[in-house]
Amino acid sequence: MLHGPFLDRNWMGQNPDYQESDVVMLGMPFDGTVSYRSGSRFAPELIRLASWGLETYSPLFDKDLEDVNFHDAGDLEFPLGNTQASLNLIEKNVEEIYKDGKKVFGIGGEHLVTLPVIKALSKFYPKDLVVIQFDAHTDLRKKYLGEEMSHSAVMYHIGEIIGFDNIKQIGIRSGMKEEFDIMKKYKTKLVFPEQLSRFKNKNVYITVDLDVLDPSLMSGTGTPEGGGFTFNDLMEWFKNLEDFNIVGADVVELSPHYDNSGVSTAIASKVVRELLMCM
Amino acid sequence: MLHGPFLDRNWMGQNPDYQESDVVMLGMPFDGTVSYRSGSRFAPELIRLASWGLETYSPLFDKDLEDVNFHDAGDLEFPLGNTQASLNLIEKNVEEIYKDGKKVFGIGGEHLVTLPVIKALSKFYPKDLVVIQFDAHTDLRKKYLGEEMSHSAVMYHIGEIIGFDNIKQIGIRSGMKEEFDIMKKYKTKLVFPEQLSRFKNKNVYITVDLDVLDPSLMSGTGTPEGGGFTFNDLMEWFKNLEDFNIVGADVVELSPHYDNSGVSTAIASKVVRELLMCM
Amino acid sequence: MLHGPFLDRNWMGQNPDYQESDVVMLGMPFDGTVSYRSGSRFAPELIRLASWGLETYSPLFDKDLEDVNFHDAGDLEFPLGNTQASLNLIEKNVEEIYKDGKKVFGIGGEHLVTLPVIKALSKFYPKDLVVIQFDAHTDLRKKYLGEEMSHSAVMYHIGEIIGFDNIKQIGIRSGMKEEFDIMKKYKTKLVFPEQLSRFKNKNVYITVDLDVLDPSLMSGTGTPEGGGFTFNDLMEWFKNLEDFNIVGADVVELSPHYDNSGVSTAIASKVVRELLMCM
Amino acid sequence: MLHGPFLDRNWMGQNPDYQESDVVMLGMPFDGTVSYRSGSRFAPELIRLASWGLETYSPLFDKDLEDVNFHDAGDLEFPLGNTQASLNLIEKNVEEIYKDGKKVFGIGGEHLVTLPVIKALSKFYPKDLVVIQFDAHTDLRKKYLGEEMSHSAVMYHIGEIIGFDNIKQIGIRSGMKEEFDIMKKYKTKLVFPEQLSRFKNKNVYITVDLDVLDPSLMSGTGTPEGGGFTFNDLMEWFKNLEDFNIVGADVVELSPHYDNSGVSTAIASKVVRELLMCM
Amino acid sequence: MLHGPFLDRNWMGQNPDYQESDVVMLGMPFDGTVSYRSGSRFAPELIRLASWGLETYSPLFDKDLEDVNFHDAGDLEFPLGNTQASLNLIEKNVEEIYKDGKKVFGIGGEHLVTLPVIKALSKFYPKDLVVIQFDAHTDLRKKYLGEEMSHSAVMYHIGEIIGFDNIKQIGIRSGMKEEFDIMKKYKTKLVFPEQLSRFKNKNVYITVDLDVLDPSLMSGTGTPEGGGFTFNDLMEWFKNLEDFNIVGADVVELSPHYDNSGVSTAIASKVVRELLMCM
Amino acid sequence: MLHGPFLDRNWMGQNPDYQESDVVMLGMPFDGTVSYRSGSRFAPELIRLASWGLETYSPLFDKDLEDVNFHDAGDLEFPLGNTQASLNLIEKNVEEIYKDGKKVFGIGGEHLVTLPVIKALSKFYPKDLVVIQFDAHTDLRKKYLGEEMSHSAVMYHIGEIIGFDNIKQIGIRSGMKEEFDIMKKYKTKLVFPEQLSRFKNKNVYITVDLDVLDPSLMSGTGTPEGGGFTFNDLMEWFKNLEDFNIVGADVVELSPHYDNSGVSTAIASKVVRELLMCM
Repeated sequence: MLHGPFLDRNWMGQNPDYQESDVVMLGMPFDGTVSYRSGSRFAPELIRLASWGLETYSPLFDKDLEDVNFHDAGDLEFPLGNTQASLNLIEKNVEEIYKDGKKVFGIGGEHLVTLPVIKALSKFYPKDLVVIQFDAHTDLRKKYLGEEMSHSAVMYHIGEIIGFDNIKQIGIRSGMKEEFDIMKKYKTKLVFPEQLSRFKNKNVYITVDLDVLDPSLMSGTGTPEGGGFTFNDLMEWFKNLEDFNIVGADVVELSPHYDNSGVSTAIASKVVRELLMCM
Repeated sequence: MLHGPFLDRNWMGQNPDYQESDVVMLGMPFDGTVSYRSGSRFAPELIRLASWGLETYSPLFDKDLEDVNFHDAGDLEFPLGNTQASLNLIEKNVEEIYKDGKKVFGIGGEHLVTLPVIKALSKFYPKDLVVIQFDAHTDLRKKYLGEEMSHSAVMYHIGEIIGFDNIKQIGIRSGMKEEFDIMKKYKTKLVFPEQLSRFKNKNVYITVDLDVLDPSLMSGTGTPEGGGFTFNDLMEWFKNLEDFNIVGADVVELSPHYDNSGVSTAIASKVVRELLMCM
Repeated sequence: MLHGPFLDRNWMGQNPDYQESDVVMLGMPFDGTVSYRSGSRFAPELIRLASWGLETYSPLFDKDLEDVNFHDAGDLEFPLGNTQASLNLIEKNVEEIYKDGKKVFGIGGEHLVTLPVIKALSKFYPKDLVVIQFDAHTDLRKKYLGEEMSHSAVMYHIGEIIGFDNIKQIGIRSGMKEEFDIMKKYKTKLVFPEQLSRFKNKNVYITVDLDVLDPSLMSGTGTPEGGGFTFNDLMEWFKNLEDFNIVGADVVELSPHYDNSGVSTAIASKVVRELLMCM
Repeated sequence: MLHGPFLDRNWMGQNPDYQESDVVMLGMPFDGTVSYRSGSRFAPELIRLASWGLETYSPLFDKDLEDVNFHDAGDLEFPLGNTQASLNLIEKNVEEIYKDGKKVFGIGGEHLVTLPVIKALSKFYPKDLVVIQFDAHTDLRKKYLGEEMSHSAVMYHIGEIIGFDNIKQIGIRSGMKEEFDIMKKYKTKLVFPEQLSRFKNKNVYITVDLDVLDPSLMSGTGTPEGGGFTFNDLMEWFKNLEDFNIVGADVVELSPHYDNSGVSTAIASKVVRELLMCM
Repeated sequence: MLHGPFLDRNWMGQNPDYQESDVVMLGMPFDGTVSYRSGSRFAPELIRLASWGLETYSPLFDKDLEDVNFHDAGDLEFPLGNTQASLNLIEKNVEEIYKDGKKVFGIGGEHLVTLPVIKALSKFYPKDLVVIQFDAHTDLRKKYLGEEMSHSAVMYHIGEIIGFDNIKQIGIRSGMKEEFDIMKKYKTKLVFPEQLSRFKNKNVYITVDLDVLDPSLMSGTGTPEGGGFTFNDLMEWFKNLEDFNIVGADVVELSPHYDNSGVSTAIASKVVRELLMCM
Repeated sequence: MLHGPFLDRNWMGQNPDYQESDVVMLGMPFDGTVSYRSGSRFAPELIRLASWGLETYSPLFDKDLEDVNFHDAGDLEFPLGNTQASLNLIEKNVEEIYKDGKKVFGIGGEHLVTLPVIKALSKFYPKDLVVIQFDAHTDLRKKYLGEEMSHSAVMYHIGEIIGFDNIKQIGIRSGMKEEFDIMKKYKTKLVFPEQLSRFKNKNVYITVDLDVLDPSLMSGTGTPEGGGFTFNDLMEWFKNLEDFNIVGADVVELSPHYDNSGVSTAIASKVVRELLMCM
């Protein structure tokens, strides 16, 4: 028999036992509705690979990845080209995670994957569920090019489930006038990390569209928008979420084929590590 | 008023008047069913841009682009995410071209765009229509990942329209066993340029999936397969098609975002030029 | 006849009618004097292409591109290798624009293209013409490597036309000692956006050399200089120019071949959109 | 519990059961002695990832990957910086594979990894062991820059174990005069595929340094040398090895960080597939 | 005889006479212990090449490179694969520089090259030697993967020579818990440029690991870490070091093969220019 | 004093003494008239750098670089933007080389640099001077975009000096009809290496425009043209030139900024090595 040692090909610092874990990392390599530059389907595996280049220790949280009891469940296999069946698959698996008393940590794929996650979650947290969205784009369209199921419409559909006033948006800098009108109407926009404190007693779900970061750092995404956050800006917000009741989270929209230097993928991996520290 | 002169932003050497032209170049920037590395929707405009870097004269055919009376009609605008409506749009516009007594020269987009073109054509050429396919892949699947409308199934659907024995395949080097069985059954495979002579009296449609070229030259495509044609190999086949009754043609599957050096796009543009010379 | 619909290949949101427009966008793909990394001749068409990926709405100005009545006139065709004839061509066409009661919005090309624009403008605005230059480099050399007509000398020649004290420079961080001496002598440097208010009653021309942005964002330029503006820094200056009497503007020095990730080109396109909002 | 389905992250078409398999694929991500452009340590995982984009069917061999009963054992974990301990680890694990009655299929890493494999093998095949080397470089140096353990010396050390006349070299086009003298002395060079027939009754080990392929196709390698094989050239040699008694094989020297377009990695994956078909 | 003129291939603005110079620039293209993405051995020559694209004048220091009397001695040639012999070679040459009454300005190569420099220096400055380290990583490991001589352990070994309390660290944001414990114990961390004033009377050596800069700017390094300095952040620290008794300096860890756009190399070159201005 | 050893930064295997050398390698980093993708001014230094990665031994010629007694004189410094002064500088320096009884081996730069070399040479070889041109393009235009001094016109001007029937062209596959007419009229085209034997008694100058190689290998050039030579094709021609009376040679048109993978530059370096072997 082979004695190795062999490289562990899972996320650095994971708990190999699903049953014993508290948080389940779930890869969702779906990018079927992407309008401009696609390829986020390759993200979960490449973020995993890049995790091997990280330290397990976070100076920001003074905590080690091994203190977070998470299990890397691998990546779902989707029926390519069938958006609805793909979304159902996510919803079903996420439901299982919560039935088992655990929380999900999703890795996209495009932003639309957040919709079935919230659908599943809303059954377990029928009230006081707040979705905190880090994003460059409002994603508040009703339809995009005639299609309801689009990554540009994901927050609109989530609003219909949990109520638009339970969406809180951070880093938004692009969208249509109608979308900005919705933002104003429901006061979804947060500007200072301190504004988060109001949600401390809520059930908080965090969704990070990586294009919230400036394209200087995050060139590897579908729709880069100038004027974004530095890495430290994002970390300041995360630090303010430290003792929250976070019931789930995801990190989406890395498009590794547009990341020639490997920097975007390395950053995505570190965003995942730091967000895991919050949970 | 401005007097310029201004750069002509259309294909080099085109006839600006649709009515007076014999061949209509039609951009079809659709890549909705692509399974691996997408982005061929950006191809028509970038091939057009690269055409400005070409000479108008072809030493191979001893002919000038201006001798080919073609009009660049621009690129169709598709309802993103709606495959069937997109295919219908192509079919309808191609029908118009043949109603007007002209021929189409399509620029993809993914290979599925050839299907509605052939649907339209088959109404005008109900018999003796032969499709000559340059490609690395058989594209003879019935379905791909559960979907009938896929670029991997395009030739299967064309076979259902014109008969599988009217498909002739050149450069194929990848597919499933079942697909190779169809190839054998219907003797679709051509190995030597001289074998083309049998089709001289037919109505010939030529479809060039650029991945027929070796990935050393054509890195900018969705599914690169080793062991492909050199540029001169392809030209030898084209030269043998010189006096044929070509009723239409297309060049598909350039994926410019995977073409870091610009070589694939330049080659695509030259393939278009030389194929125009055949018509 | 073809019914399409066809993609509009002009700048997103333009007015197709020159006569009815207020602002004329003029591509000036000239890079004949560039000393280090050239290729800005490819910029106007690629910025145009990238405009299709933008929203038409600007949250910063709460305005839509369609509110700006601009016409995309296309790109001038230059006699390659003949610098003087190229500059004359620009001057002549820009004069026409002002004769027609419109304003120019130029897209370079290298920075030298601003010189003939100012020559033309100064005939229509013989006094109170102030040029506000966003740039990493002073461009105040008399000659560069023995040649007077150089992109490194463009502001010197403009100073000779409108007076050096009518040049205002923002973001400068590189040059020779002699150039910095001219800056001090004529107090050309602005440090805070609020300093702009003095020029509110002037006829203001804005020229944006994209290397004013940090190379982390703008790798795709000829001479990247560390220590530049973030996108938001630049927007803060633009916001302060909102109600000015802007008589013309240009955005120059994108070198798309050095922009592997596409981010620089996307940013250039957004800089153009936001600067259009000021006019 | 999660029901998935989940993506299989191992080599496409593998047998998940080591015990039941005939061939064991062993990743050896070691590149400690590389002199020029390193990074082959990243190759095994990225070749594995690229395998998902391949068909399982090989038209050349008319065989399916599932007909080859191979197990993907994963990648060894090496003590970084310690060459000798790394080589020992390989030797020990490969010995286990042959003790278990199986054959090894190694994925490098640099070419030096072949040395401990041959050391282990030579214990099981003390005679009639022939090593067939596909390579651009002779690798017949005694030392390289003062070090005996170097990828440039691997074949020299193998010659000392199995005898230099049991080395057969294909595709060599670079080396020092002394190395070419050894080649002549021991007649190691093969020029035509037909020359292979002499070794049909031997125990044949095949080592493929991917730089045997032309750099037009294989830019992603440490030391690209012009004048190499096309993919089809290599396949012709493989086809001639079809019914041989192949006791082991490896594919080495992919350097994925120099493979911007992804083509070299895709080709490496296909070389592995076709070589598996021979075994 | 040839009269040229020929391009000077040395660092821009150098003094060609070693004897007459005050500062000796020494290229140390060594990267033998790098764990992740190597290639810093190519840095000295490419930084030198990029220096030709710089101005000689620094607006920040209002000084010209010609005011700094430095000589470019070229790059040491190392015995590849032999770490200890390489380090000895550096130590010996640096000793010569100080025997000749000059100071060293090293260009790496990986960070381990700083160790033999400090070994040599500590013989000439047996007391009051302070090492100021700009870096993303603590580099305070005792061993890395079992090896003492590693770029991740360089500061630990330097601490053993000069005392850990004589190490001052700026920009650190990654490391193991044990390393951060050492930092706390010896109070090595500096947060504000003003804290530097305490070391004005010391003999200061400055070592700049370029990964202290944010990966948005410095993608071309072995281990990019989000949350780094902007170029101006670094310059502010340099400006505070202006009148210090700087006895030597180095700039290390550029990995040019990960710098597709050329920006990292250009920045590295400018960091060298500005740091030379301090000396 | 420093004892090093230091890396030799000149061409591998050169003779450091100009006086004692037979062949003088002269870098001519001029690209002032390039119409499409420029940057060949960076070629001489980067080809030199890449030479360090080569072996000194050529198996094709069974000869070592040290057998060729050549001196690397470095790169001329040109007055940027002044084409005529640049060409004069080349002519003057090349004249010196022949006055000193040596031969030139030029490294471009764009193809126009060959013109002043031939001007100088024709004074020393007033008759029987034949120029053998390897190129994708005829370069036989009288003017290009109104300018006589253009890299597209270089062979026309050379024809005026030495007579068009003394131009022999190999690999040509692009040009205007008028240029191909000149080729036919003067029978400039060679198709088989054996046709070279007629020129064995002539004074032969060889000029290699690297775009004669296929763009799959030589992406790093200004105007890539499909259908070019493989490296081995070119070597076959070189091998046939082995015992010729070669009075000078050059290798031009590498554009390193379009060579992402480094392969084109490595190939250029090897072409130089093999061509040196002929002399």
